[in-house]
Formats: sequence, structure tokens, C-alpha cells
Amino acid sequence: MSASSEFLVKPNPSDARLTEKVQGVDQDKKKIITSVTVERPLTLFLNSQEIVTMMSICDYPEFLAVGYLVNQNMLTDNDEIIKIEYEEDIETVIVRTTQETNFEDKLRKKTLTSGCAQGTVFGDLMERFEEVNLLLNIKLKTSDLYAVLKRINTAPSLYLEAGAIHGCVLFKNSDPILFMEDVGRHNAVDKIAGYMFLNNISGDDKMFYTTGRLTSEMVIKTVQMGIPILVSRSGFTAWGVDLARQADLTLVGRARGERFIVLAAEHRIEYD
Amino acid sequence: MSASSEFLVKPNPSDARLTEKVQGVDQDKKKIITSVTVERPLTLFLNSQEIVTMMSICDYPEFLAVGYLVNQNMLTDNDEIIKIEYEEDIETVIVRTTQETNFEDKLRKKTLTSGCAQGTVFGDLMERFEEVNLLLNIKLKTSDLYAVLKRINTAPSLYLEAGAIHGCVLFKNSDPILFMEDVGRHNAVDKIAGYMFLNNISGDDKMFYTTGRLTSEMVIKTVQMGIPILVSRSGFTAWGVDLARQADLTLVGRARGERFIVLAAEHRIEYD
Repeated sequence: MSASSEFLVKPNPSDARLTEKVQGVDQDKKKIITSVTVERPLTLFLNSQEIVTMMSICDYPEFLAVGYLVNQNMLTDNDEIIKIEYEEDIETVIVRTTQETNFEDKLRKKTLTSGCAQGTVFGDLMERFEEVNLLLNIKLKTSDLYAVLKRINTAPSLYLEAGAIHGCVLFKNSDPILFMEDVGRHNAVDKIAGYMFLNNISGDDKMFYTTGRLTSEMVIKTVQMGIPILVSRSGFTAWGVDLARQADLTLVGRARGERFIVLAAEHRIEYD
Repeated sequence: MSASSEFLVKPNPSDARLTEKVQGVDQDKKKIITSVTVERPLTLFLNSQEIVTMMSICDYPEFLAVGYLVNQNMLTDNDEIIKIEYEEDIETVIVRTTQETNFEDKLRKKTLTSGCAQGTVFGDLMERFEEVNLLLNIKLKTSDLYAVLKRINTAPSLYLEAGAIHGCVLFKNSDPILFMEDVGRHNAVDKIAGYMFLNNISGDDKMFYTTGRLTSEMVIKTVQMGIPILVSRSGFTAWGVDLARQADLTLVGRARGERFIVLAAEHRIEYD
């Protein structure tokens, strides 16, 4: 492990826009001041087409916008982004591409997905899933996993500052690369996908950590990002396990401290 | 506290449809068998109108269907339900009312909400919010709160069996009434709302507990259900706190063991 390696991008808990100080009382009737996470609406346009309004902490609206479109298969490697405009005052972000496309069909077929809130995925979220071949010869050493878990838990974060937030980390062996947090766990994933897309970072040789549960959508997104190993401190759903086995995605859950369970593609774990 | 009081409805962790035994390995390379939660699609129709497809554990599809419609203001006290048909083989539930309505307009305006997954709420989720007057003279004793928290944590649940699930409890003083779990926290809330609607249980003198975060939608739903006190073991978002203060909803967060924080309408807490 290169002890000096640092996240390229990470949350900034001291950014005053992201949290708010609120007065209340505790169990002893004592007045306290605590920090709470600030959620804001963000309306996403792809060219002239309004796509969706999301609630986000809005620390990286451009990465969120692009990552959302990539993970919904509305943007592919063939599309060229000319400009991303974030208009803070009207809470809007516009992604402009060279070629306009009409997403009416995609917008018509929606399914609520499992997850903490009711989720929307577009009908063909699965369309890339079956084409992906995850790299076989990538290994996750248990020692690296424990080191990364420790790094994540001790890194300054909005979670430590205010709670009520999900986090995701892209890492390679024991090196952290990207760390994103958001009120919705899918926003955190999408912000990482957006950063990877815009900076040509491949998922092939990386690992992905999430605080959220290992549900079907989480597995689908990780596979679509080409990442062969997915780790969570939370548990599994049956459909998540099934899909991970189909895709040969290494699925590590309930990872805390030096404990974990692997329910799919165990062959990538190197016990050291 | 009436020590004999029991939940009217609660999860059944021994129901073989709700969890699946899966083989895997742990941190010591030891083979283990663990339970994971099974999520299933459920497509909801209101009369002939297809409303949405949700992912649910499907233990109480009828309550989920009605609660979803009630919490989205698609069903009101003026509507009379003739029949609820759950067709397990085609994963569909149909709610039939005496009067048909067209929800095209409602279905057009959708907003993704914060929460663990991307959530959809219909444009006028707020329409009943401002009309509700929560009862002022309801008190939550700290001793009752601690007793209920203990009851919830020790009750048999899918959370203890398989994890990766959210839970909600309707209670009155220290008496548990309804306990629902689901892969999405909104499904758990909606199942409670559906049971209350179908059994004419008023929210006026009740308290609501959720494992999920105290976000805007959670506050809006609790207020719409007429419940004056909302408790969570998780944290707050700023918008959740704002809305609770507007509605004079007592908002208790980070409630674990004998600790908690109140950030809105503290006047209903009785320290004993």
C-alpha cells in the first residue's frame, strides 16, 4: 500500500453549503446544535430533453449529471459531450452532446426498484449488462480490503459530520481513488461513474465500495461500469446475488473491520 | 406498558418465500450458508390504469397497494374500494374502486426524491400536507420510547434473519401496533398506511418509528397519515427538519438505546 496515496476526489465536510447547523434538544432535555445534510433539487436536461429531477447534495452536479446518463445508457462512449452547464440559481444542469437524441421511448418505460426509497430505472437498464465481460485475473487481497475499509471509515466525510448520507469509493488494491457521498446512494454511484466517464478512467482493474445494500440495481451498475469486484458494509438481496453470479461479479457483503462474506465469484479473493 | 400487548401485524421471518438460503465463504475462507432477502416485482393497477411496478418482499401486497395509492393521494377517504385482487403468478395487484379516475396528469409529473435509491413522487404529493393539523396534546414519554425501541430491536424480524431491509412500526405510548419490513423503506411505510386505511385506524394519537432517514418524503408521509410524532434510529436531512417544523411534527432522530435528538416540535416529549 502506498501510504501517501490520496483520493482524487472526496467529500468536503467543511463546505458550508452541504450541511446546516440546527438547534434541538437531546435525551436529557439539554439544548444541542447539530449538523444536518442539505438536500437540493437538481433538474437534468440532455440537450433540450428534460430527463429527471433528483435530490442531491449538489457538490458535483456535473459528475452526477453525466454519471446518471451513462448509467441509464442514455450516453455511450460514442457520444461526444460538448458542454455541461450547471445553473445554480435555477437548480438545473444541462449536458450538451454533438448529436441530439430523443429519449421519449426510454422515458416511457419505468420501473420502481428496490432500495430505501422508491426508485425509477428505465426499461433497458439491463441492455448493456449481458454484453460485459469482467476481467478474470483481478484479485482482491484481504489485507488490502481491510486497509481500504479503515481508510474509508477514518476519512473526513459528511457521514461523520452530519450522518444520513450514503458513500461510495472507487479503489484499486489498497489505494483509494474516488470518494463520493450523497443523500441517495445512487447519486453517489452516478457521481463516480460521471467522473470516470469524463476522465477516461476504466473500471476493469478497480474495486467498488458502497455503504448501501447489494441490490440488483447496485450489481447492474457495477457490471455496466466494468468493475469486477463490489464490496459493501451492508447485506445482500437474493436478486443481487443471482445477477452477480450471472455476471461473475465478486460480491462481498457485511464487510466491517476484518470480517466479510462473499456470495459470488469468490475466485477473485486472495486470502493473505 | 401493557407487557402482553402484541403487534397486530408483523413480519414472519420463518416464511420461506421471504428469504433464500445462499452458500458463500467468509473472511477465513470457511464455507457458510446465509439468508438473503428475496425481492419481487409487483405491478400495481388502480382499476384499469397501470400505476407503477415496485420491488417488494410481497408479504402484504394488498396493504402495499392501498397504502401506495393513499400516500400518493390517488385514493382518499371518499373512494370506496370494492375489491383488491393479488395475482401472485403474474405479480400483479389490482385495486378496484366504485368510481374510476384517470391519473394521466398525476403520472406525468414525477420527481426523483432523495433516499437510498432514486425515488419517484408524483407532483402533488404535497397537496394534503398543508391541510393537516396534527394533534397538539399527544405526548411521548421518554420511558415509553425506550421501551418501544427495545421491543422493536428484539422482535423477530427479517432484519435479524437476513439484513438488507428497512422496518417501520406504528405504536401508541409503549404499545406496538403494526410492524412492517420491506426492501424499500417506502414500501414498509406504505404497507402500514394501507393497513390503517383498510382497518380505519387513525394516526391522530399514534407514533411512527422508521429505521430509515428523516428525509422530506418521510416527513410528508407521516404528516399525511396524521401522525404527530416520528422517530428514527437514523439521522436527519435539512429539508426534513424544515418540513417537520412547518407542520409541527415532533421529529426524533438518532434514537438508539436511551439516546435521541429532537429537532422539531419538542413540546410533545415528556421527560420522565
